[in-house]
Amino acid sequence: MAPQIQLGLVGTGRIGRVHLQTITQRLPQARLAAVTDVNQQAAAAAAEAFGIAHIAPDYDALLADDRIDAVLICSATDTHADFIIKAARAGKHIFCEKPIAADLAQIDAALQAVEAAGVQLMIGFNRRFDANHQRIRAAVDSGEIGTPHLLHIISRDPSPPPLDYLRVSGGMFFDMTIHDFDMARFLLGEVTELYAAAGVLIDPAIGEAGDVDTAVITLKFASGAVGTIDNSRQAVYGYDQRVEVFGSAGVARSDNLFADAVTLSNRISVYRGLPLNFFMERYISSYQAEIAAFVACLVTGQPMPVTGIDGRIPVLMATAARRSYQENRPVRLDELLTDG
Amino acid sequence: MAPQIQLGLVGTGRIGRVHLQTITQRLPQARLAAVTDVNQQAAAAAAEAFGIAHIAPDYDALLADDRIDAVLICSATDTHADFIIKAARAGKHIFCEKPIAADLAQIDAALQAVEAAGVQLMIGFNRRFDANHQRIRAAVDSGEIGTPHLLHIISRDPSPPPLDYLRVSGGMFFDMTIHDFDMARFLLGEVTELYAAAGVLIDPAIGEAGDVDTAVITLKFASGAVGTIDNSRQAVYGYDQRVEVFGSAGVARSDNLFADAVTLSNRISVYRGLPLNFFMERYISSYQAEIAAFVACLVTGQPMPVTGIDGRIPVLMATAARRSYQENRPVRLDELLTDG
Amino acid sequence: MAPQIQLGLVGTGRIGRVHLQTITQRLPQARLAAVTDVNQQAAAAAAEAFGIAHIAPDYDALLADDRIDAVLICSATDTHADFIIKAARAGKHIFCEKPIAADLAQIDAALQAVEAAGVQLMIGFNRRFDANHQRIRAAVDSGEIGTPHLLHIISRDPSPPPLDYLRVSGGMFFDMTIHDFDMARFLLGEVTELYAAAGVLIDPAIGEAGDVDTAVITLKFASGAVGTIDNSRQAVYGYDQRVEVFGSAGVARSDNLFADAVTLSNRISVYRGLPLNFFMERYISSYQAEIAAFVACLVTGQPMPVTGIDGRIPVLMATAARRSYQENRPVRLDELLTDG
Amino acid sequence: MAPQIQLGLVGTGRIGRVHLQTITQRLPQARLAAVTDVNQQAAAAAAEAFGIAHIAPDYDALLADDRIDAVLICSATDTHADFIIKAARAGKHIFCEKPIAADLAQIDAALQAVEAAGVQLMIGFNRRFDANHQRIRAAVDSGEIGTPHLLHIISRDPSPPPLDYLRVSGGMFFDMTIHDFDMARFLLGEVTELYAAAGVLIDPAIGEAGDVDTAVITLKFASGAVGTIDNSRQAVYGYDQRVEVFGSAGVARSDNLFADAVTLSNRISVYRGLPLNFFMERYISSYQAEIAAFVACLVTGQPMPVTGIDGRIPVLMATAARRSYQENRPVRLDELLTDG
Repeated sequence: MAPQIQLGLVGTGRIGRVHLQTITQRLPQARLAAVTDVNQQAAAAAAEAFGIAHIAPDYDALLADDRIDAVLICSATDTHADFIIKAARAGKHIFCEKPIAADLAQIDAALQAVEAAGVQLMIGFNRRFDANHQRIRAAVDSGEIGTPHLLHIISRDPSPPPLDYLRVSGGMFFDMTIHDFDMARFLLGEVTELYAAAGVLIDPAIGEAGDVDTAVITLKFASGAVGTIDNSRQAVYGYDQRVEVFGSAGVARSDNLFADAVTLSNRISVYRGLPLNFFMERYISSYQAEIAAFVACLVTGQPMPVTGIDGRIPVLMATAARRSYQENRPVRLDELLTDG
Repeated sequence: MAPQIQLGLVGTGRIGRVHLQTITQRLPQARLAAVTDVNQQAAAAAAEAFGIAHIAPDYDALLADDRIDAVLICSATDTHADFIIKAARAGKHIFCEKPIAADLAQIDAALQAVEAAGVQLMIGFNRRFDANHQRIRAAVDSGEIGTPHLLHIISRDPSPPPLDYLRVSGGMFFDMTIHDFDMARFLLGEVTELYAAAGVLIDPAIGEAGDVDTAVITLKFASGAVGTIDNSRQAVYGYDQRVEVFGSAGVARSDNLFADAVTLSNRISVYRGLPLNFFMERYISSYQAEIAAFVACLVTGQPMPVTGIDGRIPVLMATAARRSYQENRPVRLDELLTDG
Repeated sequence: MAPQIQLGLVGTGRIGRVHLQTITQRLPQARLAAVTDVNQQAAAAAAEAFGIAHIAPDYDALLADDRIDAVLICSATDTHADFIIKAARAGKHIFCEKPIAADLAQIDAALQAVEAAGVQLMIGFNRRFDANHQRIRAAVDSGEIGTPHLLHIISRDPSPPPLDYLRVSGGMFFDMTIHDFDMARFLLGEVTELYAAAGVLIDPAIGEAGDVDTAVITLKFASGAVGTIDNSRQAVYGYDQRVEVFGSAGVARSDNLFADAVTLSNRISVYRGLPLNFFMERYISSYQAEIAAFVACLVTGQPMPVTGIDGRIPVLMATAARRSYQENRPVRLDELLTDG
Repeated sequence: MAPQIQLGLVGTGRIGRVHLQTITQRLPQARLAAVTDVNQQAAAAAAEAFGIAHIAPDYDALLADDRIDAVLICSATDTHADFIIKAARAGKHIFCEKPIAADLAQIDAALQAVEAAGVQLMIGFNRRFDANHQRIRAAVDSGEIGTPHLLHIISRDPSPPPLDYLRVSGGMFFDMTIHDFDMARFLLGEVTELYAAAGVLIDPAIGEAGDVDTAVITLKFASGAVGTIDNSRQAVYGYDQRVEVFGSAGVARSDNLFADAVTLSNRISVYRGLPLNFFMERYISSYQAEIAAFVACLVTGQPMPVTGIDGRIPVLMATAARRSYQENRPVRLDELLTDG
């Protein structure tokens, strides 16, 4: 039997608990040695719920635990870069929720620390592990649809987050589109230039908070392909997550997922229930699969499927999108490198 | 250019006018020499609408018209057998709407007259010419789904016909299921035995008129395959016409047809409009295609795609279904032959 | 917090392990006190995999464990009735996999023992807990589709079981259709009469083993509704599980479930992958939900959602189906009662 | 009965013959008094096929025919503006195929002639009359999906036109996207700015001919909504014509149309045939409906449903798209007006 991997987790909020559940219930090759959280009550409750023996008093204590091979960073976004650096220096492998940071310099510092320490780092872009997205990626990789020419990502949330959250989120491009930037790269490779058309169509308060709530971003890929991302903060019919890749030999399209496959007809219409309405329902399998992949790489020594660079580039794209929107012009990603 | 076929048509009611339109607008190789109807006003109106020069005073006069190569019999059902016999004796080829008659002896007399005269006869089972049914038949013929094991026909009307009509219709098995008996034979060949479970679930007045309004008929085919026909006189969501053939190498399923391919989603459901709700909408293309096939066979001398025997056997099946329902037992078709 | 229910499980084969996983990973209100199996190695492996502290040497020892409130009987079918009787006498509540027995007298003895002991009994007809079937049941219960007139159950396995299994299975009606008999009752209530048309279309060896591999069973319900069950032992495209209920106000239809919602198009066709191909994939959620329901009823004292009678009647229906097939006639269920 | 409208038609090529068929076979309230074509043999063949009594020797002769109320201009694109002017001066109402011209000054001259003469002009943007597009427009107009926020038009041809045609077509934006520019306006109203990302991904020869074969155009509407048009000259799976409008209260999505509604499953996949593969199949009903609408407006005096301005603005948009692509920047439509 493979040696059991010992994990520590920081941040026992919503997503942290999802990972705790996956590890304790589905991954016999991993073991949670300890958890911690700035809210010690939350940490204690999570430890009890998932049968974890040890609660570290803080993140430093977690890192000081020699039994621990790897940490999962599920704490607030503004801690990510610093926690990566500390973990790297402590010689721990790292799984970190996205984004690493909104600031490219902070990201680079974190990635340098990881490289200097020779530890492994995986970024939590869970959607790559979704069955729909995996199937479309397989269609691209296998040549089943030929050379990709066009990509469309529809990514609409059921409802906007609270304004308090919006104000600190860094804006829609950094908070929401970042998943789609990652998906675009996952499916069609590197983007060289983008153009963001956006506006405030749902709630003026979102505009007053300095953000947009609706956007269409055009992507030009290094390959010559062209893509779009469609974002809305409020799809009243539920969480709308679709992808289409059109290529020289065909097209692959994903549709939304539903709680059942029942269609009804009455005097008025043919109808069915709404799609899965919450990211925790829609993407629960992808969260499970990403942690399984992380643990599998720790066990086998294989390279991580979502690297530090994969965490960095979507932030670069979000930065370009913000500039494109502000200046109403296409922005090349390499502009940002020379600028900055 | 092929010689133009001269046609006469008797019965300018609803279905007669559909055929007039097809012939005058879509079939340059055919020409309507004359029409007739017991209602001479109806005949005159049809002749004007479709630019037909001659209105025959009655059916005998139509048959006496030497220019006419073939007749289309679209008159009341109880005239069909007699009109076939007369047309055959007059040396005309014949297209006759289904059914030939409800009485097997009358049918046999008609078929004998046709055979004796050496004319061609096609029966109007239009559904064989529908794109869905043709596609499923092609799947059976080509071996695409292997050897057929199971067949299901769903055939539900949007609403019951008037009671006055029901009383003279011969009953649901003769009036409605007869299309499905033909479809079963078209797709899987001959039936040896059937069992009819039926009832009055929609309107007690239908029961009082001596008929049923809901039925499930189990079919045993000579091949060993088993099938069902599902009939209802009232599907509130529209005309429900579906077929499924399951075989050793796969399955072919047809779904209903719709006026558009638009799906909507709102806070409540994902929905679309109802299926095409009337047989004239749903099957208009199959009516056109059957007349085109009739004319093509006249031109080429090829055998008719739906023969007199194809008109006879569904009546035999309806007779068996009635007996099966009355006696609540499976009935072999050959019982009726030895009885009768 | 509600008191924790203590469970014992007998039979650590495939389905037993599914239940072990559900209980240990998803049901904090239940605890597995002990497991046992005639194969003690299998029991030991399961205990280790799911962290169960105690392995009882045999079923009697399990029942003698005073901590245990309820047992789950997942052992071979021929042990079910006897194990129910023993558990009832030991005062344990009981979850038993279907079927209780193939013999009605054995079933009745078991149900009498349960009643005499005043314990609760739930039968494992897991499909009742499937999201599709639940949605259709809700459509029936709510009046959303009016009064049910017609029911169709398609239930086809991906491939036949081994002949050795078939020979002891009691035949397709008892082994496979029994789920569909339960589903028919779950959706439309009691059946009064049925007619089974069946045959050997897939593998002559199945016929030589005294069984059929393909069947269509017509059901007449006490309500007047009519239904069919379509069974095949081999659907090459996967596990085909669909239901349709047609009523006076509409229709509800379920379709198969798929691993993803991706459709592809190329020069040849528009296509997608096959449906979930194995009952453990297709119905995993329903297995989890049934055990959760069992535990919830133990905790709350609510009546069980699938009772002993629900276990008995499908066996009666299978007995009637066998007789119907052998005698080629519709069989009333009450014939079997008066026969003895 | 309403007075019969007398029509003359110039240009008996493919699209001219479609209109001839509609008028002669479906529109009893209109009559074709005469046709003409620079190719007199083509005119004669069309006249014979559709039973038209008179062939005018040229367009001027057609206009001189006092019986004619209105003309249909189906001749080569470079004749449209001039033929409109002549028809207007002759006091004829006008149906003209799109586009009026590629040059805005020519369009304006034509529209001024129409206005000066007080005749009616309808432009042949047939897609507005398609059942899918009409249904989506109805969803927008009725408020069924709330205020539109996002629009996506997928419009892909099955294969590129011949290079000879491409060289004189004015480029993809003028030849192909022009339909989508019209559709965008039809569904969401006026566009103020657009950005075209495009390239040559299918055939380098198209690039050498000075054109692109793949494009994504971002549209900003006066309402604040944002849209995209996706164009490809080659969708190997057929003619791909889809629209999606997302609004504050829901979404409406159209899918492609198919020759049948049959789905098959085998050991490999669940599949169906390809969508309708040719614009004459896909849009035949919309061609028929547009001519019916034109004739109905002539009869009733109602305003035309697609006006001269509706013919002008898509050309303005195509001009903007070309500039946007050439200069790689968003272009406001009013830039083009002030430029001159």
